[in-house]
Amino acid sequence: MKESDITQAEERQDDAYDLDRKRVAAILFAVERRDRATLLDLMEPLHAADIADLLEQINAYDRGRLIRLYDREFDGEILSELDESIREEVMQILNPAVLAEAVRDLDSDDVVDLVEDLTASDQAAILEVLEDADRVAVEQSLSYPENSAGRLMQREVVMAPEHWTVGAAIDHMRSADELPEQFYHVVLVDPRMKPVGNVTLGRIMAAKRDVALADITEETFQAIPADQDEEDVAYAFNQYHLISAPVVDEDGRLVGVITIDDAMVVLDEEHEEDILRLAGVGEGSLSDRVTETTKQRFPWLAVNLVTAILAALVISLFEDTIAAFVALAALMPIVASMGGNAGTQSLTVAVRALATRDLTGANLWRVIRREVLVGLVNGLIFAVIMGAVGVFWFGSLSLGLVIAAAMVINLVVAGLAGIAIPVILDRTGVDPALASGAFVTTVTDVVGFFAFLGLAAAFLI
Amino acid sequence: MKESDITQAEERQDDAYDLDRKRVAAILFAVERRDRATLLDLMEPLHAADIADLLEQINAYDRGRLIRLYDREFDGEILSELDESIREEVMQILNPAVLAEAVRDLDSDDVVDLVEDLTASDQAAILEVLEDADRVAVEQSLSYPENSAGRLMQREVVMAPEHWTVGAAIDHMRSADELPEQFYHVVLVDPRMKPVGNVTLGRIMAAKRDVALADITEETFQAIPADQDEEDVAYAFNQYHLISAPVVDEDGRLVGVITIDDAMVVLDEEHEEDILRLAGVGEGSLSDRVTETTKQRFPWLAVNLVTAILAALVISLFEDTIAAFVALAALMPIVASMGGNAGTQSLTVAVRALATRDLTGANLWRVIRREVLVGLVNGLIFAVIMGAVGVFWFGSLSLGLVIAAAMVINLVVAGLAGIAIPVILDRTGVDPALASGAFVTTVTDVVGFFAFLGLAAAFLI
Repeated sequence: MKESDITQAEERQDDAYDLDRKRVAAILFAVERRDRATLLDLMEPLHAADIADLLEQINAYDRGRLIRLYDREFDGEILSELDESIREEVMQILNPAVLAEAVRDLDSDDVVDLVEDLTASDQAAILEVLEDADRVAVEQSLSYPENSAGRLMQREVVMAPEHWTVGAAIDHMRSADELPEQFYHVVLVDPRMKPVGNVTLGRIMAAKRDVALADITEETFQAIPADQDEEDVAYAFNQYHLISAPVVDEDGRLVGVITIDDAMVVLDEEHEEDILRLAGVGEGSLSDRVTETTKQRFPWLAVNLVTAILAALVISLFEDTIAAFVALAALMPIVASMGGNAGTQSLTVAVRALATRDLTGANLWRVIRREVLVGLVNGLIFAVIMGAVGVFWFGSLSLGLVIAAAMVINLVVAGLAGIAIPVILDRTGVDPALASGAFVTTVTDVVGFFAFLGLAAAFLI
Repeated sequence: MKESDITQAEERQDDAYDLDRKRVAAILFAVERRDRATLLDLMEPLHAADIADLLEQINAYDRGRLIRLYDREFDGEILSELDESIREEVMQILNPAVLAEAVRDLDSDDVVDLVEDLTASDQAAILEVLEDADRVAVEQSLSYPENSAGRLMQREVVMAPEHWTVGAAIDHMRSADELPEQFYHVVLVDPRMKPVGNVTLGRIMAAKRDVALADITEETFQAIPADQDEEDVAYAFNQYHLISAPVVDEDGRLVGVITIDDAMVVLDEEHEEDILRLAGVGEGSLSDRVTETTKQRFPWLAVNLVTAILAALVISLFEDTIAAFVALAALMPIVASMGGNAGTQSLTVAVRALATRDLTGANLWRVIRREVLVGLVNGLIFAVIMGAVGVFWFGSLSLGLVIAAAMVINLVVAGLAGIAIPVILDRTGVDPALASGAFVTTVTDVVGFFAFLGLAAAFLI
């Protein structure tokens, strides 16, 4: 392999699964010229998920023209892959007949995802086009709480009585009129319809006909309550490597099944939520417009303003000190900023550990002790560095000692606040990802300025 | 349902899948009394993943005693579920015979995960206990780059020639000596062993015997190059809802298969990496000791110190201005902090969008324009608020105007830097999650202090 080949291969590797820029340009050109045949040719190899990405990435004007030109080819799956921020817009552009056809193509769980955020009248309009059985299935799913297992499950389940043999199961499946599009397990149920085990199709293939299904069930088996939060569902799939799991009603009876691909989507969404909430961005998406984005970001900036004003009030308490020794004004943001960063480190670890259930009663005190000790050790190291900077920059040993002491105090407090605040929020039922940042920065700003300027007032002036 | 019932149900819901505290306490008590029978009883219902969590959450002393008492019951799966930070410690505590047995139980892909980070001699010691065929499989996987599809795949694949019928496939599987523990598809291959399609076991069950496999393949089919980065693999599974995908060598020949549960673990790890890197925490885990954690966090704090000193230098340029008007010292951190927060918002959205391939050439300029406009609008709103604060707090209209202008400038710059810096880092091959934060805060600090104090020097004094 020549070097240029390697570079090319690496580039290809880097761009694996990126939308092909040339294809996007060609598609937009075809839309421009209203050349439907070329458009269909260019779109043909694209997966619904890629078409959804394409629609999200082009502007609203091009999006409208593309959808109208694409017309009858528009697939239900594209709709369910679309980001919610532009889904309604797209549904309004679509020819009603095309929309009806697209919705009819979808599985019941995808229809639920599609209509759950619509207004009642829009919801009714969509449900109307469904066949009776599908509509009932969707309406039953909608009766479960938002973001619950009941909304996530598909209702088509392949099940077998717990006493059946492999042979009976095979014969039953092979003579069934219709089997679900995607299924990987046969769920064993007792006479009261309670699921008692999962048998993979693979094991059924591998076993002799007279083997009892009950003897080849999977070791790990979780029945999921229909009202369980989807976040917990995703956790269970990830923790126990489930491929599919039966969903049960409050009496423990089988009502549906959730497959891992849906759980993976939820896991991804939960992560997105965490990462955006930690940064105070709310529910942002790249397809949002300026006004929406401004609105989403404003509240967190407003909270931060209150924090900053609080810190400013602390500083203004020491105006005389600063007037007497202006160098303090240049140095004080260093202490606050180091504390803010150390606090953010601790709180991110804590928020993540709470989300993955790694931070529990069994290790909480050890983790708190560790965070405080880490703050202390890093505080001491940076105290030495900043003390030296204070001495050499401003030629004052006492200034060096003041900044060193303030640094240690603020980094210890940062470690403590960074772990304690998310844990307290979590226990009081608030999402720690959402609110910890503001509290922790308030603490480190106030403590940082107060410690530094207070010590300076006491020992320097 | 009475209200107290609802609260109870909610509590149960909240704690779904949390390790039961009472059980943990009982287990530690049994360990304390060296009561093996009780320990085994208590551990029996726990999944390997839960046992691994338990071992991570108790302290090193208890961990050692528990493992020695648990002894022969220690399962290979517990090892592969354990966090890497304590895995080596646990392997050293384990009785060598128990370790050998545990390793022999594992699938080849799990053994790869277990040994890939060990030293060459430790690696050899583990591989030695494997059967020849398994050792060869592991060694071949290890020949692929770290974090590649080749390391992730299992080598056991169920395949069929592309011209076979459903009946032939069923007969072949049912007469096979051994089928993999977990498989969901039959991979169709051409005569040169190139995979050409996937048929789910479900469809094989549903189809008549004389149907050609080639006619019931799945619509979405992705063959994954063995050297593809595991992050791209996880993306493909999530984007295309794959359940399993064949892995091919550089000649396009089938060498293994990756299943979605492994891809889900990678997706989760990549998210963890992103969220921790954004906060400058590196590879932290809750089981790490104080010294390791201190070391992991130090570099980012050191970078932040340089940033903060840079900001301090900017401030010290204006010492005369501050000395003349001390209120500036209290107000200047507000401008910097608002810019820092707005920048973090933009950069988090950008980092996440780059990770999910939602930010591409097709929408980059539109997104940049949006971020700048959002910065401008929020800047104007907060300019009015802070201007008013300046006027009423300090009774100076010019101070109000100065802080208002600085706020607008810094929030616009924050929006621009927040999007441009991650994109530039990404294009130069640096992980934007790792380094963007430091750059963006440097920009917003320096610009914030410079704009505010510079305007103050020009118009106030």
